[in-house]
Amino acid sequence: MSLLVVGTLAVDTLETPFARRERVLGGSATYIALSANYFMHGAQISVVSIVGEDFPQEGWELLRDNSIDTSGVEVVKGGKTFFWEGKYHYDMNTRDTITTELNVLADFDPKVPEANRNAPFVVLGNIAPHLQEKVLDQLTATPKLVACDTMNFWITGSRKELERTLGRVNMLVLNDSEARLLIEHPSLVVAGRRLQGMLSTESHRIVVIKKGEHGALLFYDDHIFSAPSYPLEEIFDPTGAGDSFMGGMVGYLASRDTLEYADVKRAVIYGTVLASFCCSKFSTEGLENIDMTEIYLRFREIQSLSAFEDEPNPPKKGRRSDTELM
Amino acid sequence: MSLLVVGTLAVDTLETPFARRERVLGGSATYIALSANYFMHGAQISVVSIVGEDFPQEGWELLRDNSIDTSGVEVVKGGKTFFWEGKYHYDMNTRDTITTELNVLADFDPKVPEANRNAPFVVLGNIAPHLQEKVLDQLTATPKLVACDTMNFWITGSRKELERTLGRVNMLVLNDSEARLLIEHPSLVVAGRRLQGMLSTESHRIVVIKKGEHGALLFYDDHIFSAPSYPLEEIFDPTGAGDSFMGGMVGYLASRDTLEYADVKRAVIYGTVLASFCCSKFSTEGLENIDMTEIYLRFREIQSLSAFEDEPNPPKKGRRSDTELM
Repeated sequence: MSLLVVGTLAVDTLETPFARRERVLGGSATYIALSANYFMHGAQISVVSIVGEDFPQEGWELLRDNSIDTSGVEVVKGGKTFFWEGKYHYDMNTRDTITTELNVLADFDPKVPEANRNAPFVVLGNIAPHLQEKVLDQLTATPKLVACDTMNFWITGSRKELERTLGRVNMLVLNDSEARLLIEHPSLVVAGRRLQGMLSTESHRIVVIKKGEHGALLFYDDHIFSAPSYPLEEIFDPTGAGDSFMGGMVGYLASRDTLEYADVKRAVIYGTVLASFCCSKFSTEGLENIDMTEIYLRFREIQSLSAFEDEPNPPKKGRRSDTELM
Repeated sequence: MSLLVVGTLAVDTLETPFARRERVLGGSATYIALSANYFMHGAQISVVSIVGEDFPQEGWELLRDNSIDTSGVEVVKGGKTFFWEGKYHYDMNTRDTITTELNVLADFDPKVPEANRNAPFVVLGNIAPHLQEKVLDQLTATPKLVACDTMNFWITGSRKELERTLGRVNMLVLNDSEARLLIEHPSLVVAGRRLQGMLSTESHRIVVIKKGEHGALLFYDDHIFSAPSYPLEEIFDPTGAGDSFMGGMVGYLASRDTLEYADVKRAVIYGTVLASFCCSKFSTEGLENIDMTEIYLRFREIQSLSAFEDEPNPPKKGRRSDTELM
C-alpha cells in the first residue's frame, strides 16, 4: 500500500566524537522514506516537503534511485534549504543544537499532490502541528494509519494545536522525555496509557515511546510490548535514528497492509533494526544499500536477545506457604 | 542449596512524594535474604552482618519468621545500627541522601560462621571491597556462584581493592551508571563485555547491568539477554529494589543449583519480579507475604510483554534488489 510522508528535507552539519561532516543530507522525511523503502516492494512512497535551490544533487539522486516520489516537494527559487547543525556529546545520548536555520521551512505550506490524497498510510514527521493538520485536511479518504511524530518545542509551544492533531491520528511516536513532558507523570506506563487516550477513537490506538539505547515501549489498545534496542557497540551518528525507526515501522506495516498487534510488534522491531543501521554511519549513509538479509538477521538477533523460556517447575514457597502453582 | 548473604542490616528513614516513614527496617542483606527466601524451599539462608542493640525487634522477628539464619550477625553492645535517611525526587529515579550514619558498620569485620563456610551460593552485598574479600578468604570450598554488588563510592574510592575482589567472583550486578563509571565507555554493551573480563575465569562470567525502569542487561559468557522491567504504574518506594533483584535472582539459582544460561535468564526475570514487589510498598513491606502464584504470574506477564513472533514472510527489498531471504 502506498505511503505518504510529510516532513523535512534538510542539510545538516554534524559533529560527533568521531568526526565532523559539513552540509550533508538530512531531514525527517529523508530518513523516514529511505527506511520505509526497504519494505515497500515497489509500492509508492511520496514525500511532501519543501527545499531551496541549494538542496544537494546527491539528495535528489538518492531519492530518485529509491524511486521515491518527490512531486510533492516544493522547490523555492532562490531559497535556502532548512539547515541544522548539531554537536553530540561523548555519550551520544545528548546533543547541542549549534544552529537552526529554518530558511524555506519558515513559509512551508504543505500541498499534497492530487494523486496522493487517498494514501492509506501516512506519516506526519516532526513539523508544526498546524502544518500536520493541514496535510490531514487535504486527504480525500480516511487512511488506515496516520502516524505522528512531535517534539518538545511543539509540546510546550503549541500544545493546543498538538492536542487537536493527536485527536486525528491513530499512532503517536515520541521520545520518553517528550512523553513525560506531554503527560507530566514520571511513569512511562501511565504516560503511554494517557497518550493513547489523546488519539483518535476510530481505530487501534498506538503509542510508541522511544527510549534510545533502552529500546521502545509499544502501547497497542490494552497491550504493552517492551522492545529491546539492538546492542550496538559503537554509535557513529545518531542523527535520524528516530525517523529511521518510524520509517522502518510504518514501511513494514504499509507493505503488509496491516495494523494487527502481532504485526505492529514486529514493525517496532524492524524500526529498531533500521535505527541501528542509521546510527552505524554518518548522515543517511547507514541507510543506503542495506542487504535485506542483514535486516532480517538483526530482527532475529533481537528475537534471541529478548527470548526466555517458561518456568519448567513453577516455584513454590518454602517454609511459609503450601502454595503450589501447578 | 544453601545461600550465604553478606551485607547490611539497617535502619532507614525514607521520604518519597507519597509519604515519610521513620526508622523502618532496611539494609542490603535484609532485602536480599527476604527476596531469595521465596525460592529456597527450606534450604538455608545465612546472613553475615553487624547491628547495634537498637536493631528493631520487628527486624529480628521478620528474619526469624522467614527462617533466616542470623548466627553470623554480630550484635554490638551499646552500639547503634547503620542508619540511612534518603529523600526521593518526584520521578523516583533520583534520590538525595540526607544522612548516613555508619555507626557499628564502621568497625565491621565480617565473620562467617564455621557452618556456613562451604556455602555453594554466596552474595556479597554492597559493602567495602576489602570486606567482601575478607568473606571470600574465610570460605573453605569454592562456591558455585559468588555474586557481587558494588557502588559509585567504592568504584571511585577503592578501585584497586574492587578490581581484586571482582577477579574472585563470577557474577557482578550493578547499575548502568556504575557500569559506565567503572569502564569509562558510553556503550553499555562495551561496558558489560569489559566487566566480564574483570571477573574470575574459573566459571561462567556473568554481568548484570540494572537499568531501573528500563530493565536489565545480562551478559553471560558470549550471550546478551535484554530483560524488560515490570510495568508498574506507581512506585511507592524504590529502596531495596536493586537488592531485591539480586536476592530473587540468586535465590532462584540457588534453589535450582544451576548456572545454565536458560536458568540465569529466568533468574533475571525473577529478580525483576521481586524488585517490582519491593517498589510497591514502603521499606520491606512489599516483600512480605507475597503469594508464589503472584510471583509466577508476573513472570508470565513479563514473558508476554517481551514476546514477538518470527517474520512469516521475511521481507525482500523492492525495486533495488532481488535479494530474497528464504
